[in-house]
Amino acid sequence: MKMKNLPLLADLYEFTMAYSYFEHRMQAPATFSLFIREYPPNRGYFVSAGLEDVLDFLESYHFEPQEIEYLDQTGLFSEDFFQFLLKLRFSGEVFAIPEGRIFSKDEPVLEITAPIIEAQLVESYVINTMNLQVSIATKASRCVCAAKGRSLVDFSLRRTQGTDAGLKAARASYLAGFSGTSNVLAGKLYGIPISGTMAHSFITSFEEEIDAFRAFARTFPENTVLLIDTYDTVAGAQKAAEVGRELMDRGKKLRGVRLDSGDMAALSKEVRKVLREGGLEGVSIFASGGIHEFKIARVIEEGAEIDAFGVGTKVGVSADAPYTDMAYKLVQCDGRPVLKLSTGKKTLVGEKQVFRTRRDHRLFRDTIALRDEKLEGEPLLIPVMEKGRRTGPAESLAAVRERFREEFAELDDSCKALQSPRIFPVELAPGLRGLQEKTVHQVREKELGES
Amino acid sequence: MKMKNLPLLADLYEFTMAYSYFEHRMQAPATFSLFIREYPPNRGYFVSAGLEDVLDFLESYHFEPQEIEYLDQTGLFSEDFFQFLLKLRFSGEVFAIPEGRIFSKDEPVLEITAPIIEAQLVESYVINTMNLQVSIATKASRCVCAAKGRSLVDFSLRRTQGTDAGLKAARASYLAGFSGTSNVLAGKLYGIPISGTMAHSFITSFEEEIDAFRAFARTFPENTVLLIDTYDTVAGAQKAAEVGRELMDRGKKLRGVRLDSGDMAALSKEVRKVLREGGLEGVSIFASGGIHEFKIARVIEEGAEIDAFGVGTKVGVSADAPYTDMAYKLVQCDGRPVLKLSTGKKTLVGEKQVFRTRRDHRLFRDTIALRDEKLEGEPLLIPVMEKGRRTGPAESLAAVRERFREEFAELDDSCKALQSPRIFPVELAPGLRGLQEKTVHQVREKELGES
Repeated sequence: MKMKNLPLLADLYEFTMAYSYFEHRMQAPATFSLFIREYPPNRGYFVSAGLEDVLDFLESYHFEPQEIEYLDQTGLFSEDFFQFLLKLRFSGEVFAIPEGRIFSKDEPVLEITAPIIEAQLVESYVINTMNLQVSIATKASRCVCAAKGRSLVDFSLRRTQGTDAGLKAARASYLAGFSGTSNVLAGKLYGIPISGTMAHSFITSFEEEIDAFRAFARTFPENTVLLIDTYDTVAGAQKAAEVGRELMDRGKKLRGVRLDSGDMAALSKEVRKVLREGGLEGVSIFASGGIHEFKIARVIEEGAEIDAFGVGTKVGVSADAPYTDMAYKLVQCDGRPVLKLSTGKKTLVGEKQVFRTRRDHRLFRDTIALRDEKLEGEPLLIPVMEKGRRTGPAESLAAVRERFREEFAELDDSCKALQSPRIFPVELAPGLRGLQEKTVHQVREKELGES
Repeated sequence: MKMKNLPLLADLYEFTMAYSYFEHRMQAPATFSLFIREYPPNRGYFVSAGLEDVLDFLESYHFEPQEIEYLDQTGLFSEDFFQFLLKLRFSGEVFAIPEGRIFSKDEPVLEITAPIIEAQLVESYVINTMNLQVSIATKASRCVCAAKGRSLVDFSLRRTQGTDAGLKAARASYLAGFSGTSNVLAGKLYGIPISGTMAHSFITSFEEEIDAFRAFARTFPENTVLLIDTYDTVAGAQKAAEVGRELMDRGKKLRGVRLDSGDMAALSKEVRKVLREGGLEGVSIFASGGIHEFKIARVIEEGAEIDAFGVGTKVGVSADAPYTDMAYKLVQCDGRPVLKLSTGKKTLVGEKQVFRTRRDHRLFRDTIALRDEKLEGEPLLIPVMEKGRRTGPAESLAAVRERFREEFAELDDSCKALQSPRIFPVELAPGLRGLQEKTVHQVREKELGES
């Protein structure tokens, strides 16, 4: 499922532009910046995610004859161009903010510098994979905050927007602190712990609920988690307690029960009471069904006896913010800073760097600068690809997850508020501000006749 | 990109249930219904889409040794079970509402009957692909209504939720009446017409805007569409008109201009004026940028001079309804009707059929019935797979698109209203209602001790 060698996963305009550049022999280096223009509602930071897929894609970028054959059918391009494409590899450099770091709107999370045709052809894939993974990682991080240490498991596969999203949602939510996923293929591909026990269909396939519980406990005596809301949650808990005692008699232990509907705070307290009265201590109560950060916060506030949440659709599609306003814009061409003036669509010119400062071990402020400006603070963008090859081995997901955990702990709680968070502060460095103003002035003069 | 042979694209609980069924030698035929519980906001019908992918998946379902190896690492399953999985193929039957038809909440859009392990293991993939494609096809159909005959092109790839969604969004929106896509791979895979010309980067990569226009016109004299909002839309239109006149001098014709920002109704009128005054008639004006059904309706209402819309993110992720409440529920097991009672999650028991009646060549009402009930009207579910094989060749996307066009024309405008539409009426047949009540009664008696 790595998106290797899919150069046609692009918008046609990338090929028509590339062909026109080819015809006009435009091979100058171009720098494109990937950034997000605005925060979606209730967001004041983003979590970087998706870079590994971008690097895989760039490293393996090439055309197969059957792909050229399809382009030929469009009648838009010449044989010369196809010969050029067949030899094309990505030869450029990539600066990026590593996965698992906090970043802000307007900040380049990634900058690609390459001959303009190469940098242009990869546009759609780069946005596609980064936009999704940043959205999900950011959404998942909000759930992690809300859960205050309780365990979260990704249950979203069934209703993510397609199969690729199912895998990426599992990866991005694990990166942001989830403890596992129900998605088996994601477990295999990314080494994420997987979990899962039974659906309502398992219960209803048996004549009686308790028959289903007993059957499952026989099959998985070490890993019995029973879904108790098929008919009535409290009645289900009583039957689960009965099976739990039967397990105890065999020297085993009921691991948990799962609620999937109804008033979770109230039901979880009743269920805990039933379990305790049945002599069962230390049984985990899992909750699933329509879970998102606000619901987690609410049921915890209401004193829910819930140890872990199965988090599905609303995080897997980032339902309240199903996309970001991420753009991939040409910022420098053949050494010349460039930008567009389109209404409401500001682009910061030039090759850039972001410097992060801390105060008292907390994240304090970022400054977006030109890449050659020297400022205090930690530079966030690092060279991850040179001449089309990674500068080092692929990072492990475990390392990325740990990096996020550490940096997220340094982010002020005010920025993590679920509603109306403080926006993490960012400013522009003098060099960038100066070049930006100068470029805007020049463009207005040249294109609009202003002086 | 066909999702063949990905049996691990499943939730772990499907495997734990399957293993418990295997251990208990439960091989009875089970029927699962796929349906949507509620309408998202502003929806009163759904468009069926995704069935071809489901059938591809089922026909090619099998396990490879490396997949078994991963399952083995979990330590949950026995060697006997792995031997069983290695021989497993999908052997069941599928009844479904064909792609491109209108359907309603509560109606089974698909029913699978197979030995319970087979029917259970495919759950997540079936929901995943149908939920996405139904969401997008339904959203796209709303844009088609709003556009009143104007052409719509899918531009969503860059911000769909992953690569699979990018392809499916192109397919589902074409199915619902879009005229093409910018997505090259979708064009290749599905035979959808592709279109695209230039981005702002093309403009800014040249010293001056008009240089970029001239370069593009030289490369594509038969297909020149110029993006005119990079610096100032009206100034851009004047330069486009100049290049249009240069094309005329060479016996060619400017095909169109594209606006991508600002007040589209007002700007399109100004642009039309500039083109007319420049002696250019018949130049298409394309609009893109944040397009959705409400924006299309509004700019048309405001008298926009727009001939076609490029429709991106907000439709590609179905931003106002990024998921449906689609469920895949066991409704019959070994001949016994089954259901769950969980709060707010009704399931209709048994193998079902939907009968559609018309009045005066308009869709009038659907009735959900047991499959063996005989009612007036057209049965919507047809047998599309028997013994694990398609009952006929795969349908062409063109045929599905035409089916949708015809049936959508029969749907009353009140159901197509963009806001607060009338819900397409559906009722339950007497046989289904009777069995449903009887089953609820039996389950309540058995599980809750009620009589």
